[in-house]
Amino acid sequence: MTSYPSNIEGMIITPMEIVSVTGGDVLHGLKLDDPGYVGFGEAYFSTVNTGVIKAWKRHRKMTMNIVVPYGCVRFVIYNDRETDPTQHSFQQVVLSRDNYFRLTVPPMVWMGFEGLGVNENILLNISDIKHSPDEVDRLTINEIDFDWKV
Amino acid sequence: MTSYPSNIEGMIITPMEIVSVTGGDVLHGLKLDDPGYVGFGEAYFSTVNTGVIKAWKRHRKMTMNIVVPYGCVRFVIYNDRETDPTQHSFQQVVLSRDNYFRLTVPPMVWMGFEGLGVNENILLNISDIKHSPDEVDRLTINEIDFDWKV
Repeated sequence: MTSYPSNIEGMIITPMEIVSVTGGDVLHGLKLDDPGYVGFGEAYFSTVNTGVIKAWKRHRKMTMNIVVPYGCVRFVIYNDRETDPTQHSFQQVVLSRDNYFRLTVPPMVWMGFEGLGVNENILLNISDIKHSPDEVDRLTINEIDFDWKV
Repeated sequence: MTSYPSNIEGMIITPMEIVSVTGGDVLHGLKLDDPGYVGFGEAYFSTVNTGVIKAWKRHRKMTMNIVVPYGCVRFVIYNDRETDPTQHSFQQVVLSRDNYFRLTVPPMVWMGFEGLGVNENILLNISDIKHSPDEVDRLTINEIDFDWKV
């Protein structure tokens, strides 16, 4: 399994296996020795309705490992870390079962996501710490200049 | 959050929260201090088509924590551990978003499951060790006397 570092430091895109099984497939998620795994704090699902954009949110401490087992979700990562040579860059990834990758998102970058599937869209986030509002920053969608219509 | 131990030693049924969010809900999964959590080894999805029964399988070492974020899955647990006062008992649990519980399954019990939803059915298993065929035993569906039509 080869992982692809993005040009945003700490962001990793890892292709993953879907094992064909009679009666229903098995979809890999995350193993404790996979690239991007830094510990287990919590696993939770976020659903996003078709056409809905949830943006922007930044975790100050949490590393996220995200997979999309149902539907199709577009993720946009915005990097404004001053310490990073790629400051002010965006990266987009569209995840679905047809494009089955795991997205590792480091702390201190902004993320937004949009539901693209025709029905419901579900992402699983396996994070290294439990969710806490204390380490979350939020901006409204217009506070980061990104054209979601592209 | 109150958890309900079943009459099978080590099996726990924990009610879980679905947080209503505009544009798409958040479904809790597992936290590192939740009842039933014993460590992180791997997270993977199993899908099961409607009407399909996958049975029977026993993990000798793995503790499973299972949630059903999409569809509806019936689980049957069979206990044949000689050390257990409830040897030869069965327990059934039906999980879905309408009946949103986490099922903790200890090692050394047999499990089968059936897809009950009208579309696809998806379960997430967060296990304390990585999946390995070395610690898995299998029986065909008829080798344990259970009436799946009930």
